[in-house]
Amino acid sequence: MKVDGRAMRTLWPAPARDALFVIDQRALPHRLQVERLGDIAAVHRAIADMWVRGAPLIGATAAYGLALQMNRACDDTALEQAAAWLQQARPTAVNLAWAVQRLLAVLRPLAPAARRDAAWTEADAIAEHDVQVNTAIGRHGLALLQAVAARKAGPVNVLTHCNAGWLATVDRGTATAPIYAAHAAGVPLHVWVDETRPRNQGASLTAWELAHEGVPHTVIADNAGGHLMQHGEVDLVIVGCDRVSARGDVCNKIGTYLKALAAHDNALPFYVAMPTSTLDLSLHDGLAQIPIEYRSAREVTHLSGRAADGTVVEVQLVPDGTAAANPAFDVTPARLVTGLITEHGLVAADEAALRRLGDGPPRHERTRSACRLDRGAATAGRAGTESRQHRQPQPPAR
Amino acid sequence: MKVDGRAMRTLWPAPARDALFVIDQRALPHRLQVERLGDIAAVHRAIADMWVRGAPLIGATAAYGLALQMNRACDDTALEQAAAWLQQARPTAVNLAWAVQRLLAVLRPLAPAARRDAAWTEADAIAEHDVQVNTAIGRHGLALLQAVAARKAGPVNVLTHCNAGWLATVDRGTATAPIYAAHAAGVPLHVWVDETRPRNQGASLTAWELAHEGVPHTVIADNAGGHLMQHGEVDLVIVGCDRVSARGDVCNKIGTYLKALAAHDNALPFYVAMPTSTLDLSLHDGLAQIPIEYRSAREVTHLSGRAADGTVVEVQLVPDGTAAANPAFDVTPARLVTGLITEHGLVAADEAALRRLGDGPPRHERTRSACRLDRGAATAGRAGTESRQHRQPQPPAR
Repeated sequence: MKVDGRAMRTLWPAPARDALFVIDQRALPHRLQVERLGDIAAVHRAIADMWVRGAPLIGATAAYGLALQMNRACDDTALEQAAAWLQQARPTAVNLAWAVQRLLAVLRPLAPAARRDAAWTEADAIAEHDVQVNTAIGRHGLALLQAVAARKAGPVNVLTHCNAGWLATVDRGTATAPIYAAHAAGVPLHVWVDETRPRNQGASLTAWELAHEGVPHTVIADNAGGHLMQHGEVDLVIVGCDRVSARGDVCNKIGTYLKALAAHDNALPFYVAMPTSTLDLSLHDGLAQIPIEYRSAREVTHLSGRAADGTVVEVQLVPDGTAAANPAFDVTPARLVTGLITEHGLVAADEAALRRLGDGPPRHERTRSACRLDRGAATAGRAGTESRQHRQPQPPAR
Repeated sequence: MKVDGRAMRTLWPAPARDALFVIDQRALPHRLQVERLGDIAAVHRAIADMWVRGAPLIGATAAYGLALQMNRACDDTALEQAAAWLQQARPTAVNLAWAVQRLLAVLRPLAPAARRDAAWTEADAIAEHDVQVNTAIGRHGLALLQAVAARKAGPVNVLTHCNAGWLATVDRGTATAPIYAAHAAGVPLHVWVDETRPRNQGASLTAWELAHEGVPHTVIADNAGGHLMQHGEVDLVIVGCDRVSARGDVCNKIGTYLKALAAHDNALPFYVAMPTSTLDLSLHDGLAQIPIEYRSAREVTHLSGRAADGTVVEVQLVPDGTAAANPAFDVTPARLVTGLITEHGLVAADEAALRRLGDGPPRHERTRSACRLDRGAATAGRAGTESRQHRQPQPPAR
């Protein structure tokens, strides 16, 4: 999508295939900062410390991370160790394990000498596939927005939570893809942007994206959406997702569940933009089975922003010594989900429909072992304030 | 309640009755700052700019503001002008109009020369009455918390939103009164404190209060409460209120409605601590009839906190030029309210019960004209980003 009028993606490989360039999203919206990641450790850190975030972007970034490691060592041990370590970088997004497993499936049968080129080619394919998927989600979502526009005067008011925009993907975004498609098609739109505490991805990233694309939008505190819905100021909700269970329970950024409840209470459609790679048919009950990452308490107690002198400053919001808890995701039960906007069309949040989707169009394999590994890691992190536990596997030797 | 182990209230008159001392709550939690308000203009500013906030405290502060004006001019014109102007300082809290009207009812029949002493005496009575009311709310709420404690092992987990603590009243608080009573009675407690964006009264004020009283607590992003309820980590919700309609619709800090929805969805009790002075029997449908104050967009786009060097710094959270909307309150429909904890006991959110409460115990008159005036002011402010419109009435001459 556009930055200052020029097309840009969230990541791109160096032509020499010796590095990956990413936007360090922690500097947004105040500064566009591009970083060169030269090895798998840099990629792991960029994922774990949220330079890149958003399920699809994490997947593509991890794929390039594995490719970078193949530049250095590509025997079986190096491959398996690197893959296992990368999968631990963030516990909730199924796409991370999905992308790594997709590369493993391609690379394992190959002779080590052939793995380097194959890894880069497959990582490119994952990135391109993401753009195609999002473009298709945009096309299907456009129809929903056009239908709302046809029924009312004035702009269609969309509420979105967090950033499921192009910054969360390789390009176009998931929840924003219908918005960008509709904006391009001339559908009058206005977007309510939940600021999305504690990391404020809405206020800092979604607002930045929408501004650069020229889509009218208004940032609100996360507390405000219910009130706006009660007063007819929201026509529909579109959010992204980090993992969706077989029966359609949606794991997404913390606070999504509250907006789904409010949409339901006000008889408003609540849509989830879902690349099918985010569907995890190995899980049934999302509430019981999807692990929730607890992140640092400091994300709640402190916050960064731009001071009057232009510097970015971190400030403390609470009294000294205050405890905070920081669950990063919640699960919205399928009963509150109007529909899932996938690259194959709108699908009901219903087990039969989702299993048909999973069995139908050609998709890449997703292993159950990856999900179990993922779940174990997140559970281990939950008791403390820091959730990322890298006790095992270890980072590969350099 | 206690500050560093010493008893304190949120306001107290100077012994010479020539000033009112208040805590400037904008400096909390980083600094305890007491301000001397020497005239009605200072009181008006302290209310409008939220040096003091919370419905009961606003009422008591306004009463002293009118008393201060009686030191200077107490003829009929001065009295009526001052009263009308004070009532405009904040549009939503019914207690503001209630306190001013209570003073007017006492002062109007008196000869001007008698008004000064009567005003100070009545303001003192309003402040003392608030403390008595909150103490009674604490006693009735204690029984609810004891009942939960009797059914479970471990601490009772209470979730609260915003600050309906002693800082929102003269002392003890409304929603916190049961918590302080239970803590004093040895009931094991833990409080989930919603940070309460955009002004963060939970993170800055409720957390500060609870820490000084030694009540265990954890601050969370407003987005987190639903997830915690889904996972059995909340036993009940207690919030305050700014206005309650005859049928029990509850106007409170923005985001309260979302927590009520989540409590309902998880079959958890949702209690509202309500001094009967907050009950507005002139309104039936809270959603349609209670005016919602829209405050400055800057409260959403910027935020203040303490930087590493100890200074309090305001930082910008959004890209330059980003629009924001800031409704300050929402209305929770009566159907989501388990009960109202009043100074007379637990009352159902039900029109018959509330009208009995209104007709029953002796209460001070509340005029319908004050509510209409209040509503008109808020509606006028809604279109813009700044809601406080002081076009008329004018401040009294000095």
